[in-house]
Order: sequence, then C-alpha cells, then structure tokens
Amino acid sequence: MVTFMEISAIAVSVVSFVVAGLLFAWVAKPGVKHDRIEMIGSLICEGANTFLRREYLILARFSTVMVALILLCIPHPIWKTGGWENVVMALAYIAGTCFSALAGKVGIQVATIANRKTALAATVGIRPAFLAGFRGGAVMGMAVVGSSLLGVTLLLMLTGDATTLLGFSFGASSLALFAKAGGGIFTKTADISADLTGKVELGIPEDDPRNPAVIADNVGDNVGDVAGMGADLFDSNVASMSAALVMALALDNGIVGTHAMMVLCYATIGLLASIIGVGTARMGRHENPSHALNSSTYVTTMIYLLLSALATILFSFPWRIWGATVIGLAVGTVIGLASDYFTNDAKRPVHQVALASRNGPAFTILGGLSYGLLSVLPGMVGIALSAMGSYILCAPLGTGYPFFGISMSALGMLSIVGMIISNDAYGPIVDNARGLVEMAALGETALDVTDALDSAGNTVKAITKGFAIAAAGLTVISLLGAFVTEVNAAARQLGLEDRMITGFDIMDPNVFFGLLTGAAVPAVFSAMLMMGVDRNAQRMVREIHRQFKEIPGLKEGRPGVMPQYRTCINIATVGALRELIPAGLMAILATLAVGFIGGVTAIGGFLAGNIISGLLLALFMSNAGGLWDNAKKYIESGKHGGRASDAHKAAVIGDTVGDPFKDTAGPSLNTQITVVSLVSSIMASLFLSVSLF
Amino acid sequence: MVTFMEISAIAVSVVSFVVAGLLFAWVAKPGVKHDRIEMIGSLICEGANTFLRREYLILARFSTVMVALILLCIPHPIWKTGGWENVVMALAYIAGTCFSALAGKVGIQVATIANRKTALAATVGIRPAFLAGFRGGAVMGMAVVGSSLLGVTLLLMLTGDATTLLGFSFGASSLALFAKAGGGIFTKTADISADLTGKVELGIPEDDPRNPAVIADNVGDNVGDVAGMGADLFDSNVASMSAALVMALALDNGIVGTHAMMVLCYATIGLLASIIGVGTARMGRHENPSHALNSSTYVTTMIYLLLSALATILFSFPWRIWGATVIGLAVGTVIGLASDYFTNDAKRPVHQVALASRNGPAFTILGGLSYGLLSVLPGMVGIALSAMGSYILCAPLGTGYPFFGISMSALGMLSIVGMIISNDAYGPIVDNARGLVEMAALGETALDVTDALDSAGNTVKAITKGFAIAAAGLTVISLLGAFVTEVNAAARQLGLEDRMITGFDIMDPNVFFGLLTGAAVPAVFSAMLMMGVDRNAQRMVREIHRQFKEIPGLKEGRPGVMPQYRTCINIATVGALRELIPAGLMAILATLAVGFIGGVTAIGGFLAGNIISGLLLALFMSNAGGLWDNAKKYIESGKHGGRASDAHKAAVIGDTVGDPFKDTAGPSLNTQITVVSLVSSIMASLFLSVSLF
Repeated sequence: MVTFMEISAIAVSVVSFVVAGLLFAWVAKPGVKHDRIEMIGSLICEGANTFLRREYLILARFSTVMVALILLCIPHPIWKTGGWENVVMALAYIAGTCFSALAGKVGIQVATIANRKTALAATVGIRPAFLAGFRGGAVMGMAVVGSSLLGVTLLLMLTGDATTLLGFSFGASSLALFAKAGGGIFTKTADISADLTGKVELGIPEDDPRNPAVIADNVGDNVGDVAGMGADLFDSNVASMSAALVMALALDNGIVGTHAMMVLCYATIGLLASIIGVGTARMGRHENPSHALNSSTYVTTMIYLLLSALATILFSFPWRIWGATVIGLAVGTVIGLASDYFTNDAKRPVHQVALASRNGPAFTILGGLSYGLLSVLPGMVGIALSAMGSYILCAPLGTGYPFFGISMSALGMLSIVGMIISNDAYGPIVDNARGLVEMAALGETALDVTDALDSAGNTVKAITKGFAIAAAGLTVISLLGAFVTEVNAAARQLGLEDRMITGFDIMDPNVFFGLLTGAAVPAVFSAMLMMGVDRNAQRMVREIHRQFKEIPGLKEGRPGVMPQYRTCINIATVGALRELIPAGLMAILATLAVGFIGGVTAIGGFLAGNIISGLLLALFMSNAGGLWDNAKKYIESGKHGGRASDAHKAAVIGDTVGDPFKDTAGPSLNTQITVVSLVSSIMASLFLSVSLF
Repeated sequence: MVTFMEISAIAVSVVSFVVAGLLFAWVAKPGVKHDRIEMIGSLICEGANTFLRREYLILARFSTVMVALILLCIPHPIWKTGGWENVVMALAYIAGTCFSALAGKVGIQVATIANRKTALAATVGIRPAFLAGFRGGAVMGMAVVGSSLLGVTLLLMLTGDATTLLGFSFGASSLALFAKAGGGIFTKTADISADLTGKVELGIPEDDPRNPAVIADNVGDNVGDVAGMGADLFDSNVASMSAALVMALALDNGIVGTHAMMVLCYATIGLLASIIGVGTARMGRHENPSHALNSSTYVTTMIYLLLSALATILFSFPWRIWGATVIGLAVGTVIGLASDYFTNDAKRPVHQVALASRNGPAFTILGGLSYGLLSVLPGMVGIALSAMGSYILCAPLGTGYPFFGISMSALGMLSIVGMIISNDAYGPIVDNARGLVEMAALGETALDVTDALDSAGNTVKAITKGFAIAAAGLTVISLLGAFVTEVNAAARQLGLEDRMITGFDIMDPNVFFGLLTGAAVPAVFSAMLMMGVDRNAQRMVREIHRQFKEIPGLKEGRPGVMPQYRTCINIATVGALRELIPAGLMAILATLAVGFIGGVTAIGGFLAGNIISGLLLALFMSNAGGLWDNAKKYIESGKHGGRASDAHKAAVIGDTVGDPFKDTAGPSLNTQITVVSLVSSIMASLFLSVSLF
C-alpha cells in the first residue's frame, strides 16, 4: 500500500502540473494585440521580474549562510555526532528554498500575462474576463500545491526521515518569510504613495497614467500578492504535511507506514478535489463573479468530503482521523466566513465604519481598530475548538494520536488549498487588469467589468486570508507536537533520557519566560515591517512630488508627457530589499536566544506565546485592513456623499493605514510563526545539549 | 512579632490618614475668592459628583447581585459545605467595594478643590501652583495606600483566612473595573468631542469657554483619571498584598506567621517611604516640575531600599525575599523609563511621528501604531525577567517559595505606589487648573505656568502608567500561584485529592483551549470599550453642533452668551453608564464559561493567555496613545509649522485615536486581568467540583 499511495501522490501531482500547463497555454495563447496594453504590461512584467531577481539574489546569499550553519551544526554539531545527516538536511533545505522560489516565479510569470488577457477580454464581456483572471490564478494554485505534494512525497521516499522533512519545510518557510515581507513592503510602498499623491492630493483616479507610482503599484500586486502569497501558502501546506508526517513516523516507529499513508492519502485527495474544482469553475450566465468563486470552492469541499470518506472506507483508516480533517475544514470555513462578516461591504461593520467616517478620519480609524480587535474572537475560539475537538476525537486511538489528530485537522483545513490559492491569485490579476484598462483607456464598459471582477476579488480575499491564518495557526499547534517528538528523539539519541519531556508547565519560570518573550516577537516583527513601509513610502512620495514639480505638463495630463515610472519602481525595490531581512532575522534570532538561554522548556512556552500573539495580531490586522478597504469602496459606490465627500477623505486615510496592516504585517505573521516553530524543531537537539538553564 | 507588625501596619496607615488630612486642610484652606473660578469650579465639582453618585448607584445594584451569588455558592455551594464561610466572603467583598468606592470619592473631593487652588496659585508663580497640585494628588495617594494596607491588615487579624482576602480584593477589583471603564468612557467622550468640535472644526483653543463640552472635559479628568485611576491602583495594591498573603499563609501552614509578617512589613515600609517622599516634595528654585516629581519618586525609592534592608536585618528575614522585592522595584522603574522613552517629546519616537505627520494623518497613525507595537518589548521581557529572576532567587528557600518570591516582587514594585498615585493624580488636577485659568481668563502668565505644570504631568503619567501595567502583570502572575494554592486547598477540603494540580501543561488541550480563549478576551474587552467611546462621542458631537447652530452668538463668542454645559455633561454621563457594565461582565462571564467547561486546567491556560494578551495590548495602547498625545504637543510647541499647520491637523487626529487607547481601553486592561484572576481564585472550589471536562 505504501508504494501505491506514494505513486498516487506523484501521479496526481503530475496531473496538476499538466492542468497548470494547459491552463497556462490557454492564458498565454496570443489574441488581439493592443500596443498600449503590451507596452504597460511589459513594464509591469519587467518591474516584477527585476524585483524578484534582486530579491532572490539577496535570499540566495542568506540561504548560503544558512546552508553553512546547517552543515556545521544542524541537526547535530558536526564535531559531535553530525555528518551525513547534516548534508541531507542542507540538501533538503536547499530543495525547500528552490521549490518555494519557483512557486513565486511561476506565479509572476503567469500573472503578468493573465492580466493583459483579462484586460482585453473585459472589452468583450465579464464572463471571458472572469475566466482569464481565474485560470491565471489557477495555474498558480495547481503549480504550488502540486509541487508541495511532489516535494514532500519524493523526500519521504528518498530519506524516510522526519527531521529532513522539517528541514525542507524550513527552507520553504524561511524563503517565504522574506519573500512575503519583501513583497509586502514593495506593494504597500507603491500603493500608499500612489493613493496619497494621486487620489488624495490631486484628486485623480486610481491607476491614472499621470501618476508616476502607478506602474509600481501594479508591479506590487504581483510581487506582494502573487509571489509572496504563493510562497506563503506553499510553506503552510508543506509545514502541515511535514508536521503530520513527523508524528505519523513516530506512530509507525520511525518507518513509513500506515499513518504516513493517511497523510499522503488525504493530501492527495485534497489536490484532486482542487483540480476538479478548478476545472469546473466558470461564471454562469446570471451569476456574479464572487458567487462563481465561492461556488467552485464549495464544489471542491464537497468532492474532498466524498472522496476522503470513500478512501477511509477503502483503506480502513480510522474514522476518527477522517473526522479530524473534517473538523479542520469546517472550522476553516467558519473562520473564513467570520472574516467575511467583518470585511464585507454588505455587512454591519463596514457600514458602521463608513458612517463614522462622516465625523472625520479619527472615527474611521477607531471604528476599524475596534472591529478588528473584536474580530479576533471567532478566529481564536475557532482554532481553540478545532484543536481541542480533534485532540479529544483522536485521543481514544492511543498515545501519540491526539497531536496527530490536530495535525490532520490542519491538513484537512488545507486540503482545498489549491482552490484557495487560485481564488487568491485571481485578485491581483484582475486588479492589474483594471489598471491596464484604465491606463490604456479601453472604455467605461471594460472599466465596469474589471471593477466588478476586482470587487469580487476583494471579498474572496478576506475569506481566503481568514482561512490561511487559521491554517497556519493549527499547523503551528501541531508543530508544537512535532517539536516534542523531535526533542525526545534527540534526547534518546544523545543519551539524555532524563531530559525527555511530555509537556510544558506554565508554572515553570522557564516556560513562563518563553511565553511572554514569544508573545512580544510578533508585535515587534509587525512593527518593523510597518516602519519599513512607512519609511519607504515617504521616500517615494518625495520622488512623486519631485516628478510633478520638474516634469512640465505631467500634472495637467498634456498628451505625450509620461512620468518616469522606472524611478518609482526602483525606489520601491531598493527600499523593500533593504527592509526585508531585519524583521525575519529578528524572529529567528529571538528563537535562538530563548532556546540557548532557557532550553527546550523555554522554547515550548516561546512557541505557545508566539502562536497566541501571532494569531491575535494577524487576525486583528488582516480584518481591520480589509474593513477599511471596503469601507472606502462602499463610500466610493456613492454612499455618504461618494468620492468627493469628507467621508471619502477619511475613508482613504483609513485604507492607507490598513494597507500595511492587511498586506504587509498581517499575512507575514503566518509565516513568522511557522518559521519560528520550524527553527525550534530542527534546533531541538542543539537546544537540548547547549542551554544556560 | 505578629502583633507588633500588625500594629505597626495599622499605625502607619493611621499616620498616612493624618498626613492626608493635613494636606487636605492645607489644600482646602480658603484663600482669595474669584467668582468665575468658583462658578466654573463648582460646575466641575457638581458634574463629577453627579456622575459618581449615579455610577455608584448602578454598581451598588451589581454588587447586590454579586453578594447574593457569593452567599449562595462562593467559596462553596451553600447546599453542600457552604454557610458561615460564604457570609464572611460576602462581608469581605462588600468591604472591598466600599473601600474602593471611598478611594474614588475622596480623590474627586480633593481634586475638585485642588484644581481651583492651583489655578489661583498660578497667578502668583509656578512654585506655589506646583505645591497645590502635588499636595492635592498626595491626599489621594496617602488615602488610597493607607486604606488598602489598613483593610488588608484588619481583615487578616479578624479572619486569618486567605480566601477571604481574595474576596476583599475581588470586591475592590470588580468595582475598579467598572469605575475605570465608566470613568474612561466619560472622560474620552468629552475630550474627543471637545477637541474635534473646538480645535479641529472651529480652530478655537482647548478649554475655550464657548465650547459646550469644555466643562464635561474637565469633569472627565476627575472621574476618569482621578477616581478611576485611584480605584485601579487601590485594587492592584490590594491584589498584590492578597496574592502574597495567600502564599504566605500556605507556607505558614494556614496560620498567620513569619511569612505573612514579611508581607506586612515590606508593605508598611513602602507606605512609610511614600509618606516621607510626599512630605519632602517641593519644587526647587531652579527646578522644572517634572524634575521635582521624579526626584521625590527617587527619594521614596531610596528610603524604601534603606528601611527594608534594615528591617531584613532586624527581623532576620531571608535576604532572597528582600532581593525579590528589589528586583520588582528595579524592573518597574526600567519599564516606566521605557514607556517614557516611547512617549517623551524629547525622544526619537515622538520626533519621528511628528515628522511623519507632515505627510498626513495616515502616517501619524501608522507611526504611532508601529512604535506602540515595538514598545511592548521592554515591558514583556522586563516582566518575564522579573518573574523568572525572583522565582530563581527564592527557589532555594524550598517548595512554595518560588511563587511567593514572584508575589513579593510584585509587592516590591508596588511599594512606592503611594508616591505613584500622588504623581498620577497631580496630572488631572493641573490639567483642570489649566482649564480654569483659560476659562476665567486669568492671563497669559498663569496660562504659561499651568501649561508647564500640565506638560510635566503628561511626562510623569507615561512612567506611572508603565509602572501600573507592569505591577498588574506581575501581581497577576503571582495570582496564578495563588490560584493553584486555592485549587489544592479546595481539593483537600472536598476530598478530591486526586485532582490536585501542580501546574498547567500547554500540551493539554484543555489548557491550550484556555490559552487561546483567554488571549481573545482582552481584545474583545478593549474593542467594546472603544466602541462605547466612539458611539458616545458621536452623540456628543451632534449635541455640540446643535448648540452652535441654535444658540445665537455662541460661536462668535458674544459676551454673556453661555453654552449649555450641563447637557453635555449629561450626555457623557448617560452614555458612560450605559456602556460600563457589558465589557466587564463579558470578561467575568467568559471566565465562568471556560471554568465550567474546561475546569481548573482550562482556567490555568485562560489566565496565562489573558495575562499575555492583556499586557501586550495594555502596553501597546498606553504607549501609542501617549506618543500621539505628545507628538501633537510637540508640534504645538512650534515644530513642523506649529498650530496652524497640516502636520498639526494630522497630529490632532492621532491624538484623538490615542485618547481611548491610553485613557479608556489601555488602563482598564490592568483591572480586567486582575479581576479575571481573582474570580478564578475564589471560584476555584466550584470549578473543581462542577465542570464539563
């Protein structure tokens, strides 16, 4: 059965690549040519690729240092018991970074083609435009999930070792951390600067070609939302599979057995369901685009439930394990819907904040912050309940099963991740298409079409973001279980059996120290990223002011006068590259400091504190940011005086504050908590043998 | 020795009352009469007393319900083993609420007299004005600390029972929770409305008598910052003594012995040091007021260190216990200074945010939020280190000592609380005095004097706030120890020895469930309070607009035309009273829900999660709020274009957002975490016998 399952996983991964390839061919098929679209489109494409190349260059240097460190001392110091294990770990780490980088690259490649196709299709009608946007996103979805399943399966077949899997996952996560941070800083630098100088100061529309930052803004959508998000979900997906496999291998006494098969089986079925969901997605004649996106997600969910139940019967897997995956999927959906409630412009919170904006920006901000804080409740309680539910459900199966259950719950939540990524990548593609339509002056009808597509993208984004945060939370809880497994394996190997652990007592001062320190890290991490955006955007605003002042005729829109788009792209690039390393490095170094000071017990507390405050801040920031964005859009739709009103000015300020919340700091926190957990697990052996207390 | 120490505690408490009485007589001594000052002063006094009376009426009803519940089932259900114990608990609870209410009442009484004296003294010079303001605050400081020491000592002598002390403390805390929330909502409703309609819309100065909300704003300073804060620190002080006494009694096998004596001894010395510090405080000829406030704090600290070391020698107390109090005091000072760094207008963060304001309010907000998030680091790590330090320091003394050490560390941090309260109450008094000077048109020189005094009040406030948050954090950590003691005592009494606990394992799903849920509570709690302020302020802004529209000549400042001050006071009162119960009740009910669902282990996690996120949000909100306030003042001092500039408009918006952060939600979180801990401890027995899991 082992071989059958591994081969199935590989086969389905290959199918997903084929589907991705077919979709890519469809998206890239040459159609009508439009000079201005081509010109602007290639500017965007060039900017995105330049950024990505320079970012990867920096990350390659960082990874080289990491590889050297791994060779020297992870999992074991080379001068003690290390050696071959370290080499395998280093190779797994490199593979993880390469897969993750590739996911970002593929995403950029297709997104910067799909945006043009969508823009041109928008002149024909909403249905072909939707299809172009969605299929562009789906290429990304299929490629990311296929490669994560393929990578994990191959590694499992080649090494059969849990710690190596964590190394692979750490490679993916560390790259995702920096890619997410770098892309997030880039995109928000450009977005904020473009909005402030364009919408607020000059009163010109979004995407107006006179604005020097407008192309940088579109580049940002790609490098932040497409490449960054792809790396992020690749990493969550790999981490959830790895955590589950670590515990599965422990249950199977270190060999690849039934439990590992369950992991591969349910993950494969999830990918299969996503492929079918993607293949069947289209917009009905009377549907709106957000309905189309949601219904294909529901189709995927149903197919997963059905197929996984069948597999459970067929392979006689315990129903309790299947139940855990279902709990995860259900809770993920509920949390996604809760995020939707707080950010949807048809619901009370957005209406209230829009209403409050009439009294000035202070009330916009206060309203958004309050609802954002309130919105953490369903997420936190939901994650708590799914962890508790799957623990209790699987506990009767025996020792080791409760945490395996939690990890399967995370896996279940992420089973439909192929669909989630497709939906999520759809957003920036149609956002870009809207920009192209505006800049190439393709007409009001096309603008209306892309506006409708864009608005659906925003709604769905809230749901997928809630989902991604919940999945990361649950994954990291199961990584806590993986950490204990790793510590005990290392203790046995090092002959330190007396230092094996079963848990972390809050009353232990070491654990408590870890809890408080771990909780501070996400706050500092997000502060650093937000300050990066802040500094960078101020530089860019100065540059835009300079261009408006020094280029005659630009402000007035004299025909033929073009701003220097490239200078702005360059400022965003240089700034983002300067800011992307420190925050992530701080999180990693803090973990090492706590581990070497307080040892593995302090790390247990550290991880718990990090998860708690990371989830709290991620939910708070993502939801508050999404709420402000949609409150602005709600007013722009004509409510409370519409675009020219004071309420709109206030809402734009809210949106500007929300931008780095929801697109830089908030989503990077997912990756931050995952990276910290993985660092802890692969360093378990070192923390055990070298620590102050 | 026991009797000697108890009598000393009572004697020093009495001395503090005498000092308070003398200072009160000095402040209340009739001086020059000034009709307009008298008229406005008595309006403020009347408004504050009306609010307090109506607030206490509501709280009396709430307390009646609580007393009934206590009689029925706390600490034990009356139909099982309860009876006399419940009556004692109820009496202790009532005593706690009465003492706390009295502290607020005394504070209001003296503050509304001292503000007039300070205003009139300001026409003479800064030194007499400083003295009037400071001595007014000191009455409050002496009364609050004296009564908390007296209450705890008397209760200990009468009952000798730890659980009863926790009931007393719970009485104080529950009242403080609602008083703080109610006062906080009142003060910020008035402050925000006055600022928005006055400063922003009309461009008239703060405290301009044409503004209908201006008296309500001054009333708010009294009911929020004086009465609320007094109740808050009374409660922290009682809670820290009670937590320490619970563990002391356990160490002394349930009787009042050496360890309880240590608690009383160090607490008494703290009060003595504060009395001397207050007595010697005055402004030197060439000093500035903030220097005078700080130097008297340092004097108090030195006297405490000296006297407590002498007592340690005299009574042969273990030096390690003394060391724990010193760690607490030192870390409290460091955290206070860190808060000062982030909020002082001579330091980088304020300068950066003021500079960013030139680019618009979005950057003001983003800068403040970023620095606020960054500022949690020293606080969280400081608390972690002091808990760990005192734990490790006292661990060699034997079982039970580590947590006793933490509680003594909290006690040490609060030893100079008399001085802290005096400094803190000084702030609203001189703020009020400034208002009186402006409204009664006492001239530019007097205005300059009160401006200087007010600015010192703001600087010192940041330090005392950091101190108060740190003290609450450490107290609550030691209450976690008290909770374990209570659970085990109850388990022994109920014959449930098999359910005794030594700690809380993070890997236990019950504990983890508690951690996540507990962490969500402070977020929801602060969201509810901020929404309360938001709703209320919007009502009040509408009323002010109405008055400006309907009262002819008001806007123009035609002589003899007066706004309807009382309507605004009434709106703030009614609104605050409507909003003050739900948030606090939510926190208490969440605790009960978690306790009855997951039992004592879930509560352990719940308390830890609550402490972590409560501290995080309290530090974040207090510091961000203080930073925005001072960035605005910094610009008003003429930087970046001064009062008329766009930077100032942006900074005012930042300040408005910061108001409920720093004066409503932030400081109420202290009390929220204390209340939740105390509820858990006194319900320990019930949670042990009745829970779902």
